[in-house]
Amino acid sequence: MSTHQATTLVIAIVLVFAPFDCARASSSGDVKAIDDLQKQVDDAIATGDTERYVGLITDDAVLMPPSGPPVVGRQAIRSWSEAIAKRFRITKYLPVNDELVIAGDWAFRRATFSWTVTPTAGGDSIQDSGKFIILYKRQSDGSWRVARDIWNSNTPTP
Amino acid sequence: MSTHQATTLVIAIVLVFAPFDCARASSSGDVKAIDDLQKQVDDAIATGDTERYVGLITDDAVLMPPSGPPVVGRQAIRSWSEAIAKRFRITKYLPVNDELVIAGDWAFRRATFSWTVTPTAGGDSIQDSGKFIILYKRQSDGSWRVARDIWNSNTPTP
Repeated sequence: MSTHQATTLVIAIVLVFAPFDCARASSSGDVKAIDDLQKQVDDAIATGDTERYVGLITDDAVLMPPSGPPVVGRQAIRSWSEAIAKRFRITKYLPVNDELVIAGDWAFRRATFSWTVTPTAGGDSIQDSGKFIILYKRQSDGSWRVARDIWNSNTPTP
Repeated sequence: MSTHQATTLVIAIVLVFAPFDCARASSSGDVKAIDDLQKQVDDAIATGDTERYVGLITDDAVLMPPSGPPVVGRQAIRSWSEAIAKRFRITKYLPVNDELVIAGDWAFRRATFSWTVTPTAGGDSIQDSGKFIILYKRQSDGSWRVARDIWNSNTPTP
C-alpha cells in the first residue's frame, strides 16, 4: 500500500465515522458534571434563587409544571420562577435520584422528591411528594445545562 | 508508508472512534419509526387497548402518571392500565407534537395533548389538556419502544 493509498483509506474511514451523531463520548466525568449541576439546581430550587436557577438552564429550556401551560425559554422561565417565589417558599426539598442516562449530547434523570411549600401570605404549609424527568443538554463548551423539566405530584386528587 | 504501517494507522483510528457511544447513527428512518410507534401508542391509549399498549413498551418501562406513584415495569403498567380502563373511557384524544430529538439509542418527544375522559360508571365527561415527555429506547433488533412516560395537566388546581 502506498502512502497515497493509505491516506485515502484513512480519509475514507474518517468520512464513514463522521456522520455519526456522537461528537463526544460520555464518561464518568459527565456523570459527575451532571450530578454537580443537579446539586446546584436543587440548591437554587430549595432557596428560591431564580437568577441562579436560570443561569443553569439552556436559552431554549422548557419547564413543564403541573397545573399550567409549558414555560418556554429562559426569560419566560425567569418570570414564572419569580412569580412562584413571590407566592411560595420551599421550606423542605428532598430529591432522590432514580436513574441518570447519558446518550451522546443529551442526558436524562428520573427522580422522586418530597417537599414542603409554605405560602408567603401565611396559611398552612403543603407537604407533597412527586417525580420528575429532567433532560440535560451538553453545551458547545462541554458543560451541561438543564434543557427540559417536567414533574407531577404523587398525591391522589380528591 | 508501508502496508503494515497503514494497517496499524487504520486500526489506531478505529480504536479512537470505537469507544464512542454511538452504535448506530440516527436517521430519517428513525424519525419515521418513532413516529409510527407513537401513532400506535396514541391509538392504543385512545382505544384503551392495554395489551396493544404494553406490546409497545420496554420490559423496564416506567410510567409516571400524575396523582400517583411511578408505575415500574411492564406487568405493573399492564395492571395500572387495566384498572384505569375499567374506570374511564377516553372519548377524544388529540396529541400534538412539539419536538422529537434522537440521541444515539435514546430519543425523546415533547408534546401537548387534549382529551375527553368519560367515567364508565356514568357521570360528566372530563375535558382536559396537558403535556408529556416520552423517552424511547432503541432495541437490540433496531426497533424503538416507549421506555419512560411522564405527563401532567395544564389545568390550574382550584
